[in-house]
Amino acid sequence: MPHRWAGRREKILDGKERKQSMSKTIAVTVWNEFRHEKTDEAVRKVYPDGIHAAIADSLGTQEGIEARTATLDEPDHGLTEEVLRATDVLTWWGHMAHQEVADEVVERVRRRVLEGMGLIVLHSAHFSKIFRSMMGTNCSLRWREAGEKERLWNIEPGHPITEGIGEHFELPHVEMYGERFDIPTPDKLVFISWFQGGEVFRSGCCWERGHGRIFYFRPGHETFPIFRDENVRKVLTNAVRWAAPRVQLPDDCPNVDPLEPLR
Amino acid sequence: MPHRWAGRREKILDGKERKQSMSKTIAVTVWNEFRHEKTDEAVRKVYPDGIHAAIADSLGTQEGIEARTATLDEPDHGLTEEVLRATDVLTWWGHMAHQEVADEVVERVRRRVLEGMGLIVLHSAHFSKIFRSMMGTNCSLRWREAGEKERLWNIEPGHPITEGIGEHFELPHVEMYGERFDIPTPDKLVFISWFQGGEVFRSGCCWERGHGRIFYFRPGHETFPIFRDENVRKVLTNAVRWAAPRVQLPDDCPNVDPLEPLR
Amino acid sequence: MPHRWAGRREKILDGKERKQSMSKTIAVTVWNEFRHEKTDEAVRKVYPDGIHAAIADSLGTQEGIEARTATLDEPDHGLTEEVLRATDVLTWWGHMAHQEVADEVVERVRRRVLEGMGLIVLHSAHFSKIFRSMMGTNCSLRWREAGEKERLWNIEPGHPITEGIGEHFELPHVEMYGERFDIPTPDKLVFISWFQGGEVFRSGCCWERGHGRIFYFRPGHETFPIFRDENVRKVLTNAVRWAAPRVQLPDDCPNVDPLEPLR
Amino acid sequence: MPHRWAGRREKILDGKERKQSMSKTIAVTVWNEFRHEKTDEAVRKVYPDGIHAAIADSLGTQEGIEARTATLDEPDHGLTEEVLRATDVLTWWGHMAHQEVADEVVERVRRRVLEGMGLIVLHSAHFSKIFRSMMGTNCSLRWREAGEKERLWNIEPGHPITEGIGEHFELPHVEMYGERFDIPTPDKLVFISWFQGGEVFRSGCCWERGHGRIFYFRPGHETFPIFRDENVRKVLTNAVRWAAPRVQLPDDCPNVDPLEPLR
Repeated sequence: MPHRWAGRREKILDGKERKQSMSKTIAVTVWNEFRHEKTDEAVRKVYPDGIHAAIADSLGTQEGIEARTATLDEPDHGLTEEVLRATDVLTWWGHMAHQEVADEVVERVRRRVLEGMGLIVLHSAHFSKIFRSMMGTNCSLRWREAGEKERLWNIEPGHPITEGIGEHFELPHVEMYGERFDIPTPDKLVFISWFQGGEVFRSGCCWERGHGRIFYFRPGHETFPIFRDENVRKVLTNAVRWAAPRVQLPDDCPNVDPLEPLR
Repeated sequence: MPHRWAGRREKILDGKERKQSMSKTIAVTVWNEFRHEKTDEAVRKVYPDGIHAAIADSLGTQEGIEARTATLDEPDHGLTEEVLRATDVLTWWGHMAHQEVADEVVERVRRRVLEGMGLIVLHSAHFSKIFRSMMGTNCSLRWREAGEKERLWNIEPGHPITEGIGEHFELPHVEMYGERFDIPTPDKLVFISWFQGGEVFRSGCCWERGHGRIFYFRPGHETFPIFRDENVRKVLTNAVRWAAPRVQLPDDCPNVDPLEPLR
Repeated sequence: MPHRWAGRREKILDGKERKQSMSKTIAVTVWNEFRHEKTDEAVRKVYPDGIHAAIADSLGTQEGIEARTATLDEPDHGLTEEVLRATDVLTWWGHMAHQEVADEVVERVRRRVLEGMGLIVLHSAHFSKIFRSMMGTNCSLRWREAGEKERLWNIEPGHPITEGIGEHFELPHVEMYGERFDIPTPDKLVFISWFQGGEVFRSGCCWERGHGRIFYFRPGHETFPIFRDENVRKVLTNAVRWAAPRVQLPDDCPNVDPLEPLR
Repeated sequence: MPHRWAGRREKILDGKERKQSMSKTIAVTVWNEFRHEKTDEAVRKVYPDGIHAAIADSLGTQEGIEARTATLDEPDHGLTEEVLRATDVLTWWGHMAHQEVADEVVERVRRRVLEGMGLIVLHSAHFSKIFRSMMGTNCSLRWREAGEKERLWNIEPGHPITEGIGEHFELPHVEMYGERFDIPTPDKLVFISWFQGGEVFRSGCCWERGHGRIFYFRPGHETFPIFRDENVRKVLTNAVRWAAPRVQLPDDCPNVDPLEPLR
C-alpha cells in the first residue's frame, strides 16, 4: 500500500553545481523579535537600533559575509520564501514574544534548515519555537539575573567555531543559565560555562539536522552589551562560516525500482 | 528581564521513590490508527482484530509486561492525560491517517516522553507527527513494495534490544525502506538491513529525548504477517523493557538563587 | 588473499544462556596501585588499609555486589586470566606508578573489557595505561592542588549512574581537574563539575567499547577522604550496576560463506 | 601530591597563526607496507609500482594537494619525526605485515594525529596497529573473497567527504567485509555498503581524536583495481581535504593557578 508522497528522486549536486549553487559570499539574515528595544529604556540605551542591528553591523564587516536583518513585526516576520531562499545562515534572537511567531513561518524556516541552511540560535532563543521544534525537547534550563561573571571554556580548540579564541574568555556581567539544559546530546560540545554563582552550562552546542547545521550560543542579553564583546563577535563570525550550506537538497520520499533482480 | 516561566524547582526522586513511582510491571499502550484493517480485505485477513491486537497479544504474554490498546477513532485517540499518565511505554503504528492525529494529542504524548515515558515507533510511523516532532527532521526515506527479502544485521549484540537475537535474522517478504533515512544520527544504531533489491537501511535506532527513550524499528507491514514473526516479537519485547521509564520528571525552568556569594 | 585470522564464528548467547553466563551477583575487582599509602603518612591517615580497601568495603555492603581487591605488587598485579574471567566490573585507581603496570596485563584487561567486562576509571587513573589505550587519546587535563570546593552538576537525572543523586552535590576539598580533557566525545556525559578556582570539567563520562562499558569518574584523592563521601559511594555503586556485563563475546574475525547466491 | 608532568600551558594559535602554521597546500604522505606487490604476480599486474604509487598519483594531480609516499622497508618505515612534522594527512594501507610496524613509529604517528594531523585508513588497514590503537577496539569484522558486487550508499550527501558522489556507487568485484565491525560508534557514518552475498557494512566512518580527524574507508584490494575507480578516487580526495589539520597543538597537562580567589 503506497504512501501518499510523490516519487521525486533526491537530487544530489555534483561538485561544480554545489559550488555554483552556493554563493561565495555567505548571505546572513539576522532575525530579531525587536520588542524590548522599543519599550524599555534600559535596552534602548545598549542597543539603540535593536540587537539585530548590532549583530548585523558586526557580521557585515567580516570578509565574505553579507548581512541583512528581519524582524517580527514585518510582514511574514520578514522571512518570506524568497528571503529564506536567498539566506545561507539565519541567526535568531527572541525573548518575550516567542508565541507570536507564526507556526507557518517556523515550519518554513525548519524546512530550509533541513535543506541545508545554517541556523544560529542566541541566548533566550533557547525557548524559540524554531529551536524547540528542531530539537524535539523542551530546551528548559535554570536561570538568574544577577549580573554575575561568566567564563566560557573552549573544549574544542580545533573546531572552526573556536578559531582565534584562547583557552577561555570571560564576560563580566551576564544573566546566568545553568544545567540541566534539556537538549538532545550535542553532536559536538564546544564551550562549557563557569558562573560565579556556582552553576555550569553547555554554552556552545553543535547539531546537524537534515542537511543543515545548528549552533546554539548562550551569551547574549538585552541590557548587557554582550554583542559588542570582541570574543562573542568572533564566535558568531566563525559560527556563520561553519554553518554555511554545503548542499541544498529538497525533501523527498521516492518510490524506487529495485537495483537488483528480485527472483 | 525575567522569563515568564514559573520558578518551580525540578524534582529529582531518590532511589526508593524512583522504584515506587515506577510500577514493577511495565504498562504498555499499543496505539494503532486502525484504518486499513477496516477497509481492506487483504489487511483484515492478516490482522483480523487490527495490528494493535496482534502486538498487544504478543507483548501481553511476556513476563512483567501488561498491554492495552488505543486507536485513532476513540475519543482523544484513546490517549487522554489519564491513560498516558498510566503508560510506561507507548508503541505507535500509523500509516494512512497521520494527518488526522490531533496536534494537541501529539503534544501531550511528546510531553510525556520528555518526562520519561518510552516510545516505540513502528515501520510506516516514521512519518507520524509524534516521531517527526521528536526528531525535528522530515524522516523521509526511499521505499518499494515488491515483497522482497530483508536481512537485519545485529550490530550491537550486547544491547538489551538484541537479547536473544543472533548475528542476523531474515524476513522473507517485506516492503523495502532504503537510505537516506532523514533522521538525527541515532545515539545507538542496533540493526542495519540488507534488501534483496540492493538497498540498505538503519532499521533499529535508539535515541534519548528529555528523560524518555525512543526506539524506531523498521519491520512491520499491514499485509505481510511481520508482527507474527518470532524475532520481531522478541525485539519488541526487548525494546519495551529497554524503553521503560527510569525516572519521571516534569518540565521546569526555575529562577534560582546563587549557590556562591556574588561579590 | 586471506587474512591470517582463524575463521571462528562469533557466538551470540540467547537470552537464557546470557543470564546463566552472568552471575546474578556482580563480582567487582577493586584495583589499586597501593603505593603512596605505604610511603606517605598523610595518605595512610586517610586510607590506613589502602584506597582499594575503602572502595571495596563500601561496594561490598551493597545488595547484589561482591567485591575483592587486587594491587600492583601482587604477581600479575593480581589480575591473572582467572581473576579477570571471574570479574564482572573492574575499578581502577592509579597515580604515581602508571608506568609500572605491565603492558601484557593492560592488554589482558583491555581484551576482557571488549568482551563485555565493565571498567570504572577513578580520578588520577585518567593517565593509566588501560584508560589511555581504550580511549586512544592522551587523556590530559589541567590540574591544581589547592583543596578548593567542587560542585558536580547532574545533567542526566534519568541515567542509572545518577540514581539517588539530586541536581548537584558538593565536595568541600578537592584537587582540581579542568578542561580541556583530551578524551573522545563521551557517548553520554552525566556530570559537569564547577570549581571554586574558576574551572569546569566533564566529571562523569560513559563510553561503550566492544561489548564493555567504561565510566570515568573524576572525584577521588589520596589525602582527601573523597571515597568516604556518601554521594561518591552512591555513584560508584550505581556505576558498577550500570557497567555489569550484558554479554560476554570473544573477539572473532570469521571468514564466511555467502548467504545469497553469487551469480 | 603533584603529577609528574611538567606544567607547560597549552598553546592556542590565533586565527592568523593558524593559517600560517597550516600550509595552503595539503601535504599528504601515502603509506604502504609494499609487500605483496613484490612477491605476488597477480598484485604486481594491478599495481606494478605499488598501491602507494597508484594512490599518490591520483591525489597528487588534485588542486591544492601534494603527495609523497613512504613504505615499511624504508628506515623508520619512512615516517621519521621530520616527515610526520611536514605531513598534513597520512593515508595508511597495510595487509600482511601489520605486526612488522614498529611500536615506536605507531606511537609517533598517534601523537601527531592527536596534535592535529589527519589519518585515512584504507580497507585491510582496519587491523593496522595505528588504527586499533586509536580506536581502542579490536576492529574485527566478517570477510570473504569471492569477487562479488558492492554498492556503497551515501547517507550524508551534505558531508564534505561525499561531495560529487551521488546517492550510491558500485564496485563490480570486491572482497566483502561484513558487520559486526568492532569499532567505537563513529562520530559520523557516511557510507553503508550492500553486498551481493547478503551482508552490510559501515564503509565510511569519521572520528575525531585529540585535534586530529580519522576516516576509515572500506574499499580497496590488492588484486582488484579499486584505487583506479573514479568514485573511490573522488572520496579519497575529499577525505584528504576534510582531514587536513585545523590546528596543531602539542599535548600538555599543565599545573595551573586559580583564576578566582580561593577564600
